Amino acid sequence: MTTEQRPPSVDLVIRRVTVLAGTRRPVAAYPDLPVDDPGRPEPVDFLHDHAIGVVGADIAWIKPDGEVSTADLETARVIDAPGRIAMPGMINTHSHSSMTYFRGSAEDVPTASWFNDHIWPMEVNLTERDVSLGARLAVAEMLLAGVTTVADHYFSMEQIAAAIDEGGMRAVLAETFFSSQGAAGLDRSAAFAAEWNGRADGRITTMLGPHAVYTVDDADLVRTADTARSIGVRSHVHASETMHQTESSLARRGVTPIQVLHDTGMLDAGALIAHGTGIVESDLAWLTPYSDRVGVACCAKVYQKHTHTTTPIRLLHDAGITVGIGTDGCASHNTLDMFESVRTMALVQKSDARDATWMPSSHSLDLLTRQSAAAIGREHDLGALRPGFKADIVLIDPRKPHLQPMNDLAAALVLSVRSSDVETVIVDGRVVVDGGRLVGVDLDPLMVEMNERLPGLTDRSHGTTIQTYAP
Amino acid sequence: MTTEQRPPSVDLVIRRVTVLAGTRRPVAAYPDLPVDDPGRPEPVDFLHDHAIGVVGADIAWIKPDGEVSTADLETARVIDAPGRIAMPGMINTHSHSSMTYFRGSAEDVPTASWFNDHIWPMEVNLTERDVSLGARLAVAEMLLAGVTTVADHYFSMEQIAAAIDEGGMRAVLAETFFSSQGAAGLDRSAAFAAEWNGRADGRITTMLGPHAVYTVDDADLVRTADTARSIGVRSHVHASETMHQTESSLARRGVTPIQVLHDTGMLDAGALIAHGTGIVESDLAWLTPYSDRVGVACCAKVYQKHTHTTTPIRLLHDAGITVGIGTDGCASHNTLDMFESVRTMALVQKSDARDATWMPSSHSLDLLTRQSAAAIGREHDLGALRPGFKADIVLIDPRKPHLQPMNDLAAALVLSVRSSDVETVIVDGRVVVDGGRLVGVDLDPLMVEMNERLPGLTDRSHGTTIQTYAP
Repeated sequence: MTTEQRPPSVDLVIRRVTVLAGTRRPVAAYPDLPVDDPGRPEPVDFLHDHAIGVVGADIAWIKPDGEVSTADLETARVIDAPGRIAMPGMINTHSHSSMTYFRGSAEDVPTASWFNDHIWPMEVNLTERDVSLGARLAVAEMLLAGVTTVADHYFSMEQIAAAIDEGGMRAVLAETFFSSQGAAGLDRSAAFAAEWNGRADGRITTMLGPHAVYTVDDADLVRTADTARSIGVRSHVHASETMHQTESSLARRGVTPIQVLHDTGMLDAGALIAHGTGIVESDLAWLTPYSDRVGVACCAKVYQKHTHTTTPIRLLHDAGITVGIGTDGCASHNTLDMFESVRTMALVQKSDARDATWMPSSHSLDLLTRQSAAAIGREHDLGALRPGFKADIVLIDPRKPHLQPMNDLAAALVLSVRSSDVETVIVDGRVVVDGGRLVGVDLDPLMVEMNERLPGLTDRSHGTTIQTYAP
Repeated sequence: MTTEQRPPSVDLVIRRVTVLAGTRRPVAAYPDLPVDDPGRPEPVDFLHDHAIGVVGADIAWIKPDGEVSTADLETARVIDAPGRIAMPGMINTHSHSSMTYFRGSAEDVPTASWFNDHIWPMEVNLTERDVSLGARLAVAEMLLAGVTTVADHYFSMEQIAAAIDEGGMRAVLAETFFSSQGAAGLDRSAAFAAEWNGRADGRITTMLGPHAVYTVDDADLVRTADTARSIGVRSHVHASETMHQTESSLARRGVTPIQVLHDTGMLDAGALIAHGTGIVESDLAWLTPYSDRVGVACCAKVYQKHTHTTTPIRLLHDAGITVGIGTDGCASHNTLDMFESVRTMALVQKSDARDATWMPSSHSLDLLTRQSAAAIGREHDLGALRPGFKADIVLIDPRKPHLQPMNDLAAALVLSVRSSDVETVIVDGRVVVDGGRLVGVDLDPLMVEMNERLPGLTDRSHGTTIQTYAP
């Protein structure tokens, strides 16, 4: 906030909206908020008929629309959106954006076949151009669906960074590496993280990207944690992706993948853990001391499709561990749709717990917004609409048959809404989707080029692969 | 098909589309088709760059677009839709349309509380006007989402019939009754079925609507079966909705709800069974003799949300019993979105079976189209795009970021598509949705009136209820 006598002139005012200001479920990252009756519904703060003032990239104020003054409007672009729901831009806490290319290319197969017979042989073919095109399509898909930030983990990350920058999106980028690449893998990931952190007016931040606990050895994980600390970033890593991985690790070496992350200093250095469906109760002892810098990304549709157990959210919640929502890549999730992901999460949670009262929509919204922000270390300026937070704002049009009547706003945003209900998307104070369309982007040439390149990219006749999946 | 020398003039030609002509998984209703390796993927017939000719309410021909002649186009309205996917209009095999009113009104509660504390006390308040408004909203929601037929089960069915007729939709309507109403309940349901069967140019057909095996006694079920035979309709009935109901029935009277349907003649007279999540292996002996006239409607999202087991589709499939897809009412499903329902079904099937190869998208599409048609006894003219079938056609626009690139058309229609991708909807040869909008319908006054009436409708302070749930 400014310290000048005169308030700064407002650049953008969004009027007459219902503001999902924030959820009130405490997470570890909010030590100031009391923990009442954990596991029960917490209210969501909806402010009816309010206005949001944006200065530059930040939310300056939120107040009843009736209190908006002429001075507030003097220099501002006004979006008059009566009755729309304004919610925080969604944060996809785990994806491989460029894999839009492989959407539908590895269907109805078990996990080992998915890696060894399909994805990793196809990824041999990837060029920087493919990564760039795939990422640009992903940015379009996410922005149109109200996703304003993505935590990405992939190869040729400069291409993805350029697509994020060009598209006006926000991202936390991690260049993937394996120990099989030798020292060069981590060095490259570290160089990317150091070089790109804070770029694109701060819209791009970075993490290190060790692929997984079973493809990066302990010595490299130790080196990763040290490097992360020295750069001042966290790491984004696949760990305990399946219960099979946990069991296999226990059988082979007597420790769980989460303990490996602990023992190598990865948790201490801060970690965004992808999936964690194999997290077991004994892992809580390793995780809880680092609950202020560790989060787990849940991509529930992927676990259903690939027949894994799901992320043990209740266990993690009761221990105060942050859980965010993600989509994973399109080769497994088929979309980058966060409304779909949070809905699937909620339904699987209820069903698995055999408890219809567990994971009420208010809690789901907390995972979707505030906890997803905490999972990427941005609980202080993302995941809520509050003064001082980034102006990453999504407007939803509720005047659709499938959202009416509106008996329960939170339930509507979890169980009825579609991504196509997103009308306006603002990132860092800039309108990037207007009237349900990307501002200033023609996707046709991109789609044409992608489809032309598709046969070469999905070819597997070369008989080689980038890795072998045998965790 | 006509028997005249000269072919009839074509009223509508849809050009340059990819036609989902039909699925090739055999169902009981298709005894002419061989059963190969049941349980494995069956291909879906997609015809690229084809045209569909419609005469009146029926599909007259489907042929390569290059073979369309000038004569074909002479009298026809032409919809030139290059690259769009044409699929059969979807059939919602189980719903209570008017319950759009209760969307979001009974969240995060167990089943008994859902009935006893929320829905049944609120349904005391229902007036014919409410049923009418709720149904009109439902028709709008379904048509916009590519759902052209609904099998509905509710009160004040004349109001719903009027909404179906007015909206240009197709429906199979059943007036709900309980034994607690005495003879009047069945009499009213029978009178509706007899009077409305074949109305609205044949778009409305009927069934009898006994509520459930636990709310309609055996004597009334026997009378229902006899009445159904005399009118020439089937019955639509809730049975084995949960495993608890099956266990409770076995404990109380030593028979499953499905055996009750068998013993009372209900299966012999033809039955659309809602849910059937409590169907057990021993029920197959009762069901299989009637596989040509019995179907089960699966509404998978509801079972997840209310923590029931799911419909045992693999068991039913292996026994040759038809399974269709439905949504149930909005009080439990929160939407009337069939793409959502089939996707949820597919993911739950894979996950529950711990078999990623089970329920491939081609099989899901078969449930969504051909088996849903068979479940309502319309396998001869609905659920596929073929000459002689009804012109119930949905056009999907695949040029969206979340559908590109298109590596697998069937997977895209099950795992990536959104209802908002529906561009054009044709029912009985008539265009009812054009460019994603309802033709000639202004929904605003409807939504305003519904919201005005909402407080009275959801009031439960009267302390009464229409039934008590204690199966």
